[in-house]
Amino acid sequence: MPTYKAPLRDMRFLINEVFDFESHYKTLPNGEEATPDMVEAILGELARLCENTIAPLYQSGDEEGCKLEDGQVTTPKGYKEAYQEYVAGGWQGLSHPTEYGGQGLPMSLNLFKQEMLGAANWSFAMYPGLSLGAMNTIQLHGDEEQKQTYLSKLTEGTWAGTMCLTEPQCGTDLGQVKTKAEPQDDGSYKLTGTKIFISSGDHDLTENIVHIVLARLPDAPKGTKGISLFIVPKYLPGQIGEDNGVACGSLEKKMGIKASATCVINFDGATGYLIGPANQGLECMFTFMNSARIGTACQGIAHAELAYQGSLPYAKERRSMRALSGKKDPDAVADALIHHGDVRRMLLKQKAIAEGGRAMIYFAAQYADHMISGILEDDKDKYDRWDSELGFLTPILKGFLTEKGLEVANDAMQVFGGHGYIKEHGMEQIVRDARIATLYEGTTGIQALDLLGRKVLLSSRGKCVRDFSRKLLDFGRKHLTDGELRPYAWKLLKIAAEWNYLTTRIMLVAAKDREMVGTASYDFLMYSGYAMMAYFWALQAKVARDKLAHGGNEPKEFYQAKLATAEFFFERMLPTAKGHADAALKPTKSTMQLAPEHFSFDYE
Amino acid sequence: MPTYKAPLRDMRFLINEVFDFESHYKTLPNGEEATPDMVEAILGELARLCENTIAPLYQSGDEEGCKLEDGQVTTPKGYKEAYQEYVAGGWQGLSHPTEYGGQGLPMSLNLFKQEMLGAANWSFAMYPGLSLGAMNTIQLHGDEEQKQTYLSKLTEGTWAGTMCLTEPQCGTDLGQVKTKAEPQDDGSYKLTGTKIFISSGDHDLTENIVHIVLARLPDAPKGTKGISLFIVPKYLPGQIGEDNGVACGSLEKKMGIKASATCVINFDGATGYLIGPANQGLECMFTFMNSARIGTACQGIAHAELAYQGSLPYAKERRSMRALSGKKDPDAVADALIHHGDVRRMLLKQKAIAEGGRAMIYFAAQYADHMISGILEDDKDKYDRWDSELGFLTPILKGFLTEKGLEVANDAMQVFGGHGYIKEHGMEQIVRDARIATLYEGTTGIQALDLLGRKVLLSSRGKCVRDFSRKLLDFGRKHLTDGELRPYAWKLLKIAAEWNYLTTRIMLVAAKDREMVGTASYDFLMYSGYAMMAYFWALQAKVARDKLAHGGNEPKEFYQAKLATAEFFFERMLPTAKGHADAALKPTKSTMQLAPEHFSFDYE
Repeated sequence: MPTYKAPLRDMRFLINEVFDFESHYKTLPNGEEATPDMVEAILGELARLCENTIAPLYQSGDEEGCKLEDGQVTTPKGYKEAYQEYVAGGWQGLSHPTEYGGQGLPMSLNLFKQEMLGAANWSFAMYPGLSLGAMNTIQLHGDEEQKQTYLSKLTEGTWAGTMCLTEPQCGTDLGQVKTKAEPQDDGSYKLTGTKIFISSGDHDLTENIVHIVLARLPDAPKGTKGISLFIVPKYLPGQIGEDNGVACGSLEKKMGIKASATCVINFDGATGYLIGPANQGLECMFTFMNSARIGTACQGIAHAELAYQGSLPYAKERRSMRALSGKKDPDAVADALIHHGDVRRMLLKQKAIAEGGRAMIYFAAQYADHMISGILEDDKDKYDRWDSELGFLTPILKGFLTEKGLEVANDAMQVFGGHGYIKEHGMEQIVRDARIATLYEGTTGIQALDLLGRKVLLSSRGKCVRDFSRKLLDFGRKHLTDGELRPYAWKLLKIAAEWNYLTTRIMLVAAKDREMVGTASYDFLMYSGYAMMAYFWALQAKVARDKLAHGGNEPKEFYQAKLATAEFFFERMLPTAKGHADAALKPTKSTMQLAPEHFSFDYE
Repeated sequence: MPTYKAPLRDMRFLINEVFDFESHYKTLPNGEEATPDMVEAILGELARLCENTIAPLYQSGDEEGCKLEDGQVTTPKGYKEAYQEYVAGGWQGLSHPTEYGGQGLPMSLNLFKQEMLGAANWSFAMYPGLSLGAMNTIQLHGDEEQKQTYLSKLTEGTWAGTMCLTEPQCGTDLGQVKTKAEPQDDGSYKLTGTKIFISSGDHDLTENIVHIVLARLPDAPKGTKGISLFIVPKYLPGQIGEDNGVACGSLEKKMGIKASATCVINFDGATGYLIGPANQGLECMFTFMNSARIGTACQGIAHAELAYQGSLPYAKERRSMRALSGKKDPDAVADALIHHGDVRRMLLKQKAIAEGGRAMIYFAAQYADHMISGILEDDKDKYDRWDSELGFLTPILKGFLTEKGLEVANDAMQVFGGHGYIKEHGMEQIVRDARIATLYEGTTGIQALDLLGRKVLLSSRGKCVRDFSRKLLDFGRKHLTDGELRPYAWKLLKIAAEWNYLTTRIMLVAAKDREMVGTASYDFLMYSGYAMMAYFWALQAKVARDKLAHGGNEPKEFYQAKLATAEFFFERMLPTAKGHADAALKPTKSTMQLAPEHFSFDYE
């Protein structure tokens, strides 16, 4: 059973040594307070909260799950108290405006928080996490009264929020949404319809829950252009405890994240309020989609980290057979697993994904900070520019890191052999919990279409790949004759060329054969993930190499381990990327030719 | 929720059209009865049993699980009745000697059975499956009295069997076994010790359970050369219901296969009988290891098949968005999932693994038949020759097909989007059940070491790769100028060359650096799996092409679908193999250099 410990050394390496957040924060309108001392204090306090209060509820929450009785959802034992401690610490409003009770700190700090909370206990982290979606929506699209009424309660954390999008007949394809909103004489609306898969849809952590609901006005245009956004509180303000026609119909029985309440929510003439312009609900919803998806990308590294924290101690402790090159623990009955090459392969994969993915997310966090600056400074151009930069990273981070997080959670379980399959070791729970990450907030397939179809081809005709791959080219050119970094430099140059070639080739084919976007999208996304992670491993290797070269007081082992992990990633993991590139370039015929009725001859 | 239907059309294609089992059976000493009519009747009856009786218990068994009360394990509702129907049909003794009540048919028929039973309900299939291990051991190493006493009951199916190997401190490394066997004056032994992870260790399906137990005699040599094999029945013959010191201590709580009872079995001075020569227990145990592992390899294709049967109807029924090349179902609100390229990618992967893996297993089944012929004809050379041929296939089939089976079960769940994560759809159960397959009967890592270290390097110095790849070369040379088959021929030639190159290179490096065997083993295994599957897809394509060319009465769509699936495998899946080849050739340094204490700086 892994006992979560916040990986502060690695976080500090990225924050202070790789990405220089101190300088970064100085460029932000809300960065003044985020001094290195403050950041350090925040990380330390969060680590304590996560390790001592939230992580211990991880396994018990899975066993107990949530309950629905008399229309009210109860979270597992201890969740309410842990949430109260979280609220008392002022953590919910960390990156939200001071005028509504928040701390007004940069959004990146919230992402550091999200990673720690999530690695400690993803199900728990879902409750405050979903509230953030509602907070962001109200902050950006609500009027002042709505902000005063709802945002301040949400920022405090005494109320929680949800996002109600999915209906039984549609998830991805929100144009099919049917929930109706009928205008009332007082300017409010009555909402009627059924929403499913509503995370934190009901629970006992807060006195009220604020639902952000997608619905249709009477006579709204069909499809996606006829959807509006509404605030529908469980209890109307000032009427706590009085039924507003919002009810949890049932709790879903799920593979994992069992302590997170996934609800069917029935709106039965519930009173709600329009937020943002009528019929522009989807656009409003997508304002913060990029940052929400980066929050979900965190799940990939959170579970990679937790899985590693479970499998590493086991690999050091469990003894089986002798190392191939001779006894390592001659006095013991057998050598520890960690001396076996194939076990090391599985451990180093976890480490490379957790640390490489963390670097990708922290980098994106700086983009998110800049995007928020655009909002704070009311600078639409700035917002658009950074939102577009972030928009390229988002599907790659969400798609690639959640897939790889699941893959290495399986590797961690594999390190345990048959014991990994037994619940008490806690490893199978990580796999079950990690499994949702590739499905919600847009499946991997949807991320892949968003990346290739929308971001790369439609919006930029490949420019976003050219722009990002310039970083790889710059690194490559600069370090091509630079001893230890030479192999990375060389490979980055090759990847940059291949990534652009891939993009151009797909673009040319897709111009004649639109299906190419669909058939190539997954492999293109995976290739892009490897390409990006390669850059961030090279960057980490460079910083580590420089630190070792310049001496200093830090023990050198940490940096040597960074170099070793970078080497492992480039040698043993990166070859997978080539297969994705090859597959992505294949004509659509082999995927598209088989008629639906000929997929099987034995059953429908 | 998938409703299992036996894929008889595909099975017949392999049995009759690809591998010509009719001719094959004529070469076997026990093949006379296995006429095409008999095989057809067996497949039909098995399909009915599996579809109507066993498959309907799949989901309910998962929900209910097994129970341990008053020292007795109860299987889920309906399992006992289903097992009785299975026994009444004479299915347990299908491939076992007529002199002990079996049907004496070739072993390959038993593998066809195993696939169907397993796809219908893997947990159920474990009960008769584990008995087979005990039956094989007693058949080969038991004396006549032991066969009369135990084998006939096991063949009937009124008694069941288990294999008791693993102990808390060891699974893979059986040299650490501690269970003691003390000789008694009457020639029997008293066994004392604890065995864990005993599948079917206790249950209510049969009146008695026969444990085959690994234990140490007093003064036995240390390690693997001091282990003997014992028959230890739950109840001694003639004393049904009287305690023999064999008790189920607890049931493991597992991620999946919950209807299969995984027991801790305590032997407390239990009476048992030596089987086979003293201190040669491990060797006796390994006699049938290859065929047992092929049985487990079946789990890969069983779950791939079931997953496909779940996701294909959903992809035809569920509607979301429009196809990229234009509306396919213009009158509907949106197009069915199956019209989207990325969904097709996931469906065709499942199909390619299920059908390609089935071909690999049916091919190996013929080798198993020949190996058994060696036993039946008391021809040691013949047995050894075929056991060695089978020994090369075994780790590839078990390692590769269980990994790929899990991978495509996850793809099938992914086709469902968020609904895949919900229990009621039944897809997440397939993933949980499939997950055990890479762990038991030797983890993938152990299969990889067995393949590269033992079979390829130690026993044959690469000869087994040279021998098998000759099939690829022959196909390649023969069809290089043969229209439709040309691309496959060309790729098989390349793979054959690359596979041998890989083998030779690893062998040369390993001669100086033994760790190479460990660091390269996993990627070598996966490469070998792709190489082998490529051959069997080319073979299926050839047969399909010939059928289409020669006309005949069969509808042509089946063969066209085979050609399309072969094309998909070669174009979209085979590129993955190259990444494994590249990774396998990397020097050991990147995997072995990091000191165990430097894997993390934040926790142990």
